[in-house]
Amino acid sequence: MARAFSLSKRVEFAETDLAGVMHFANYFRWMEEIEHAFLRSIELNVISEHDGGQVSFPRKAVHCEYSAPVHFQDEVELSLRVTRIGEKSLEYEVEFRHEGRRVALGRQVVVCCRMHDGKFDAISIPDFIRAGLQAYTVEE
Amino acid sequence: MARAFSLSKRVEFAETDLAGVMHFANYFRWMEEIEHAFLRSIELNVISEHDGGQVSFPRKAVHCEYSAPVHFQDEVELSLRVTRIGEKSLEYEVEFRHEGRRVALGRQVVVCCRMHDGKFDAISIPDFIRAGLQAYTVEE
Amino acid sequence: MARAFSLSKRVEFAETDLAGVMHFANYFRWMEEIEHAFLRSIELNVISEHDGGQVSFPRKAVHCEYSAPVHFQDEVELSLRVTRIGEKSLEYEVEFRHEGRRVALGRQVVVCCRMHDGKFDAISIPDFIRAGLQAYTVEE
Amino acid sequence: MARAFSLSKRVEFAETDLAGVMHFANYFRWMEEIEHAFLRSIELNVISEHDGGQVSFPRKAVHCEYSAPVHFQDEVELSLRVTRIGEKSLEYEVEFRHEGRRVALGRQVVVCCRMHDGKFDAISIPDFIRAGLQAYTVEE
Repeated sequence: MARAFSLSKRVEFAETDLAGVMHFANYFRWMEEIEHAFLRSIELNVISEHDGGQVSFPRKAVHCEYSAPVHFQDEVELSLRVTRIGEKSLEYEVEFRHEGRRVALGRQVVVCCRMHDGKFDAISIPDFIRAGLQAYTVEE
Repeated sequence: MARAFSLSKRVEFAETDLAGVMHFANYFRWMEEIEHAFLRSIELNVISEHDGGQVSFPRKAVHCEYSAPVHFQDEVELSLRVTRIGEKSLEYEVEFRHEGRRVALGRQVVVCCRMHDGKFDAISIPDFIRAGLQAYTVEE
Repeated sequence: MARAFSLSKRVEFAETDLAGVMHFANYFRWMEEIEHAFLRSIELNVISEHDGGQVSFPRKAVHCEYSAPVHFQDEVELSLRVTRIGEKSLEYEVEFRHEGRRVALGRQVVVCCRMHDGKFDAISIPDFIRAGLQAYTVEE
Repeated sequence: MARAFSLSKRVEFAETDLAGVMHFANYFRWMEEIEHAFLRSIELNVISEHDGGQVSFPRKAVHCEYSAPVHFQDEVELSLRVTRIGEKSLEYEVEFRHEGRRVALGRQVVVCCRMHDGKFDAISIPDFIRAGLQAYTVEE
């Protein structure tokens, strides 16, 4: 098992809905937020200059399973693991825990892309990014 | 093949991000929006009174695959199909098309629940809801 | 009195909060949405090419007064008027009505700017934009 | 001058728009977030039990003036002051600073209300709330 990166978040009022719980789409904003905090922690940025252009990681597929709701002002522990480093793509898993038990589990597949004018072309993950991520890869 | 329910949406400025495209989490808001429009169209509501309590459909799992980005002011055609009606849960598939081609495909599993105080207990789908949905079920 | 531009919106689930009403910040997203629909209706765009650069209208100040809440699935009538056309700035007023009575009143001051690299420089409103707006100005 | 309550926030990707800056409506979410953090800090809650019912503070009017944009990953210092305690309403001012200079200034007027079924009735601010707020009032 490789290292996990952790972040603590509190459910804000604007993130709840009339059912009194955090709206399900907001888990994806949180998944992205921990991913970016993780990248900063290893001195990478979600948008890098590389080879005369901008490289970023748009999402290819995202998924979330919910096992219990969270409520206004709940403190939630997020924990991110890099579960796969491919030639052009990465996979992350993000676990959400509240009061010691898992409340949701998210996964995202992101693709390394050169961005230009709101379009994306997939490219091989540059070595300086691959090197930074390696230490966090899950060994299974 | 059963009927599909359709809805047209335009990408609003607040739904874009600095990459110049619709932020990936907003597809889930749109999936929920077409689901609710669909329920209204068959005279059901996302929150019904039933058996002296409130019945609703929180999400159990959601998924989205992205094949091309959409941009500010793009018109996107959403099309929803009910892909499974189980004892306590439903499955929906939502296709997003722009200028004739698929740009994303979403799926959600929702569970019929009695709501009380921000908690949810799964129950069998009441007959009046099941009957309304039946006509839309995909025959495969 | 000059003409008003109208738009009808329904309160979506994701726009509500745990108080069971539309979250107050969403009125500003709606104000921007009707402004952009208005600009499209007079064949202007919120981002125009002009004089070899991009011109847009970031907000200088925004304001909203709330007189009654709106709830999930409520239909709300928005009505926008251009209340002032200055040298470099515009003022809009947006009224929100539900079931025949005003529920909120918003105002925004936007400044005509040349955009470059996420920075904004105020410029005089180009004539082609001024001409398009003139017909909608409130005479007071 | 009375005490100010402070909070530091970072601009997340989902909070930006295609102009490359934080979307203007998100400042209102941040204003609410610092208000709630402030209330927690003086051991009050945005929703209190009082006199057999629920008391909260819906917004009556909100306002924001923008002097410079903020960008993805910028760290922003928020500082809240209670500028008025009335019979039934409160006024807050929230200053947003980035790299030592003011980028925005927000104000909100909130009204003490009894909530029932998504409706709000204004009431006098209960003494236990008034007492908690007093220490933070600006003396001018």
